Amino acid sequence: MKILVINPNTTSSMTDKIAIAARAVARPDTEIIAANSQDGPASIQGFLDVATCIPGLLAEVARHPEVDAIVIACFDDTGVDAVRTLVNVPVLGIGEAAYHAASFIANKFSVITTLSRSVPGLENNLMRYGLVQKCARVRATDIPVLKLEEGDPATLFKIKSEIRESIAQDNTEAIVLGCAGMADLMAELSEEFGLPVIDGVAAGVTFAEALVNNNLRTSKIGAYSQNR
Amino acid sequence: MKILVINPNTTSSMTDKIAIAARAVARPDTEIIAANSQDGPASIQGFLDVATCIPGLLAEVARHPEVDAIVIACFDDTGVDAVRTLVNVPVLGIGEAAYHAASFIANKFSVITTLSRSVPGLENNLMRYGLVQKCARVRATDIPVLKLEEGDPATLFKIKSEIRESIAQDNTEAIVLGCAGMADLMAELSEEFGLPVIDGVAAGVTFAEALVNNNLRTSKIGAYSQNR
Amino acid sequence: MKILVINPNTTSSMTDKIAIAARAVARPDTEIIAANSQDGPASIQGFLDVATCIPGLLAEVARHPEVDAIVIACFDDTGVDAVRTLVNVPVLGIGEAAYHAASFIANKFSVITTLSRSVPGLENNLMRYGLVQKCARVRATDIPVLKLEEGDPATLFKIKSEIRESIAQDNTEAIVLGCAGMADLMAELSEEFGLPVIDGVAAGVTFAEALVNNNLRTSKIGAYSQNR
Amino acid sequence: MKILVINPNTTSSMTDKIAIAARAVARPDTEIIAANSQDGPASIQGFLDVATCIPGLLAEVARHPEVDAIVIACFDDTGVDAVRTLVNVPVLGIGEAAYHAASFIANKFSVITTLSRSVPGLENNLMRYGLVQKCARVRATDIPVLKLEEGDPATLFKIKSEIRESIAQDNTEAIVLGCAGMADLMAELSEEFGLPVIDGVAAGVTFAEALVNNNLRTSKIGAYSQNR
Amino acid sequence: MKILVINPNTTSSMTDKIAIAARAVARPDTEIIAANSQDGPASIQGFLDVATCIPGLLAEVARHPEVDAIVIACFDDTGVDAVRTLVNVPVLGIGEAAYHAASFIANKFSVITTLSRSVPGLENNLMRYGLVQKCARVRATDIPVLKLEEGDPATLFKIKSEIRESIAQDNTEAIVLGCAGMADLMAELSEEFGLPVIDGVAAGVTFAEALVNNNLRTSKIGAYSQNR
Amino acid sequence: MKILVINPNTTSSMTDKIAIAARAVARPDTEIIAANSQDGPASIQGFLDVATCIPGLLAEVARHPEVDAIVIACFDDTGVDAVRTLVNVPVLGIGEAAYHAASFIANKFSVITTLSRSVPGLENNLMRYGLVQKCARVRATDIPVLKLEEGDPATLFKIKSEIRESIAQDNTEAIVLGCAGMADLMAELSEEFGLPVIDGVAAGVTFAEALVNNNLRTSKIGAYSQNR
Repeated sequence: MKILVINPNTTSSMTDKIAIAARAVARPDTEIIAANSQDGPASIQGFLDVATCIPGLLAEVARHPEVDAIVIACFDDTGVDAVRTLVNVPVLGIGEAAYHAASFIANKFSVITTLSRSVPGLENNLMRYGLVQKCARVRATDIPVLKLEEGDPATLFKIKSEIRESIAQDNTEAIVLGCAGMADLMAELSEEFGLPVIDGVAAGVTFAEALVNNNLRTSKIGAYSQNR
Repeated sequence: MKILVINPNTTSSMTDKIAIAARAVARPDTEIIAANSQDGPASIQGFLDVATCIPGLLAEVARHPEVDAIVIACFDDTGVDAVRTLVNVPVLGIGEAAYHAASFIANKFSVITTLSRSVPGLENNLMRYGLVQKCARVRATDIPVLKLEEGDPATLFKIKSEIRESIAQDNTEAIVLGCAGMADLMAELSEEFGLPVIDGVAAGVTFAEALVNNNLRTSKIGAYSQNR
Repeated sequence: MKILVINPNTTSSMTDKIAIAARAVARPDTEIIAANSQDGPASIQGFLDVATCIPGLLAEVARHPEVDAIVIACFDDTGVDAVRTLVNVPVLGIGEAAYHAASFIANKFSVITTLSRSVPGLENNLMRYGLVQKCARVRATDIPVLKLEEGDPATLFKIKSEIRESIAQDNTEAIVLGCAGMADLMAELSEEFGLPVIDGVAAGVTFAEALVNNNLRTSKIGAYSQNR
Repeated sequence: MKILVINPNTTSSMTDKIAIAARAVARPDTEIIAANSQDGPASIQGFLDVATCIPGLLAEVARHPEVDAIVIACFDDTGVDAVRTLVNVPVLGIGEAAYHAASFIANKFSVITTLSRSVPGLENNLMRYGLVQKCARVRATDIPVLKLEEGDPATLFKIKSEIRESIAQDNTEAIVLGCAGMADLMAELSEEFGLPVIDGVAAGVTFAEALVNNNLRTSKIGAYSQNR
Repeated sequence: MKILVINPNTTSSMTDKIAIAARAVARPDTEIIAANSQDGPASIQGFLDVATCIPGLLAEVARHPEVDAIVIACFDDTGVDAVRTLVNVPVLGIGEAAYHAASFIANKFSVITTLSRSVPGLENNLMRYGLVQKCARVRATDIPVLKLEEGDPATLFKIKSEIRESIAQDNTEAIVLGCAGMADLMAELSEEFGLPVIDGVAAGVTFAEALVNNNLRTSKIGAYSQNR
Repeated sequence: MKILVINPNTTSSMTDKIAIAARAVARPDTEIIAANSQDGPASIQGFLDVATCIPGLLAEVARHPEVDAIVIACFDDTGVDAVRTLVNVPVLGIGEAAYHAASFIANKFSVITTLSRSVPGLENNLMRYGLVQKCARVRATDIPVLKLEEGDPATLFKIKSEIRESIAQDNTEAIVLGCAGMADLMAELSEEFGLPVIDGVAAGVTFAEALVNNNLRTSKIGAYSQNR
């Protein structure tokens, strides 16, 4: 099957990292098509970026009509509802995929994300999905998204320190990495802290494979209908 | 003061109706600037329109920098978070304004909206605002938004019949008109059914005046901050 | 229009302060009638005062039959439901007015109130209004209501220190002043801390003006009906 | 032990019926002191009565200082918080007692009450107690409280018909009688419909006995504290 | 009346302590039958014990067919739904009994329990009962259940220190002892800290007496029905 | 990988049907080990069966130590928490798998289950998972579980008629089949009604594959820890 993993910002180095994370978990017979928007913000941080990245995202989706599922690789799950209305195949945001994955293996999870300004948007999503009661806390590291690309040791140190506090204070049983740019850290952090660490890209790709194998598609009799 | 009342679809006859509703309630010294998007969908029905109208909405907002408050005259409250991030003045969606107004004068309200496909989006908004527990039911009339512009008696008949059922079945104490295109019906329906009928355009304009007179502006220390 | 702003305790110096706050935001053509109960507790702190102030409040309301709206200037929103049943015009509590105002301009707000014993009553109100999810925390300063009238610098210091902690710890984006007696501090605190500071008296008066201009009145077909 | 069962309206025939219901379940060594307000409304129907009955209720409580527990025999649980602040002994409303009793023996219960105008007040209480999720529906019979005193067969017929509908439509497993004036119907209805029928007066008295035997009293370190 | 108080673990010294707590609050004419499972875990700590104790619990229940009510003396409320399906009499878990008792006398309560691994199970129960909003926090002492039997002063010290923190930090108004093995501490702790301290065994026995005196039994028309 | 799909009742014809559903969606390199309890109830209907099937379920799990994931093929998700504590690999109930799958492709889903007596247990699960707000309604067909094995046309007719009502009345966008014994109906019903129909066995197997490929296992630092 073909899964479109689409980064709704325009930073191709981030798309490359996402593609690696996606291919690392995909089945041998799954083709991962990694793409990003051609126009729009270079990173998605806060409500304005979430809105302005939409045209580029929809345009890029339209460029890949023959796919079996779509994963939107932005932790804010931007544009998920719009893309579900546009296509018939299953569409998953990496935020929602990660939260649902965490719900299967832990009583409580904490989210480690980038800037504080992104926290209310993530909390709104958790409330909408019904999973806010499973989330111990959304913790900001105050690391900008693109800073994650630089491989600065201080960045990793900050993430680890939030995980440590989360275990000590939040009764958390699993960690959700709250940015597609953290996808490469999953294994190392899980090993070091002895608890599940969930990356939404990996969760999104494998859940997309699951839905396709269930022969399940986006419902077209209600709000995702394309008929006027 | 100047209030920008912005219709995020491109149908100018609807903007005209919105302008009339806004001016009918605004104070004498309030200037209503009614505008609509230059590009985008002709009406906003469902998740895809909610997303694709954003660029046109943001562009139109940018054309009116010197206003004291902004009312987004789409009942889905599309783009409210993005516009709040873009500007410093208060920004209200007409959906949220109507729900909050209803909360002040009734224990329960019902929403009468256009197509069924819009219902889940409105329910998501109500959940996010915390007001879902005050909403008896969101009822669809299955009248397309632009059909409201035609003045067909069958349209009014359908709206009245949903209000009648809502009073009989939902324990509702007030009606919220769930589309900017219904703004002209407020007085007639309130008179006929003997209960408050709330139009979001009117509610949004008067609450915007209220916030400006309180000297309150959109908070800029959290998720609506423009700094990176 | 005439708005009755009624202080349900018997402390007239507090009524004077409330009147000033009300007139500061009211339109030129709005007449503010400030009044207080003739009988009952000197301040309203906790569940017993909330109950015992009711007869005095209802009696005072009855003395002002020709008003267009009523604002109950006690942050506990005492007697709001009873007064709504008694009259036809819109009735707002200053607590609910402030919470709804905060919801329009911030993702999360914190409340700074007087005694700890008042906190559960405010939390009950927030739950009933549906806005508990928007409230980061209700913080008590342990300053008695009437102490606010004395202008003691230690009082202001304590309020400021709670606001500081709230910004640092609660992810709050706005502050709601949780007592009518704090109405005079709004401007100074907003300036100092760089975030919206909301006073319920001002919010209540301007929202009352808004409802009157919408031609909206308390619903009389359900629980606020006067018919037996 | 001595339990004060206090009817906060002034209708003594209703107090007599309440006393019979209370004594029918009390232990042999429990003395039931049945009393009613000397001043206030003759029945409590809706928000205004709930408020205006308070002074009479508090005065009557003060006349009985030597009791071990207090049951407030109004299904709206009017004045419960105020009385808890006034005294040290346990205080129960018959509404809350009935809802908690139902929670021990059924997954879902329905409430059969008097007028429609009382429904929102009961729903507010259920939400505050956390038990709204256990309540299938609050059903109004549109029988005025005092009509229950007349023994009209049509009254009983209406109550039975609401119970029948509740079993058929609400998935209900138990019935809560939503008015102190229905206390005498508990046994007959339970027998006829084959499910638990809960009267708040009986539940309140026996739970009061339970709390006294646990040596539990109203907490005095928080909102029920009498210290200023 | 006869009340079966059943300890679903196999530690008879704990059963003895439970019997003493039960008899201390029961009426003179109530016969307390204290029993424990003959097979199963020696203590119940976490989800696996909660499940594996069920056969022993159900077997022991079957050995006592002639009782008027059953109290399951495990704070996790293990097997309550199954036993309710098996018998017709009222069945109470000591966890739920304690939470409901706390709700009658305090706005907020905290739970002091044994191991951290038990916390999510208790939080799930509170959510299901609807009382999670009344619970300020479930606090683990990290004392194993059977350690409570040893009378080690360090154990009591740890419990007291958690209560102290709970009063200082959680705004709590009452303490619920979160293990049947703490039943003997109720009086001492209540005295020392000046707030209600609730033991589920005592609450369960007295509420069982109350339900029996109300002539209320487990509903048999829904999910607790034994018919297939 | 090896996935243990375990039917916690003793009806092997149902296990055969489950095995077929599991293998129909599993990858070529996934080995499905279908098993059922050796002891316990022949079907699981209501709270008592949910409890009494546990020992047989745990014994069967222990017979298959070398698996990569476990799917518990009972729609009540019985024993999921206990099995998660017993093993390190991912464990999914088919109820939770189906609800989460539905959340990815529809705004609202309805559940079509067997007997009415099972409804409260499913509603409790939905509340615990947080997904109750996505579930329009749990509908009982009043078909006993084992009746599904008989292939009676009246059975299929009843299921179809509930789906039809659900589409007409509940605003549902997807159907969740609420019993492992309905697994063979998924394709036919989806085709006939034009909306996604979700079978928990298929969802559980494919999500288990997904978690294994993510290298995610049950968290062992909290309530699922095996250490005492």
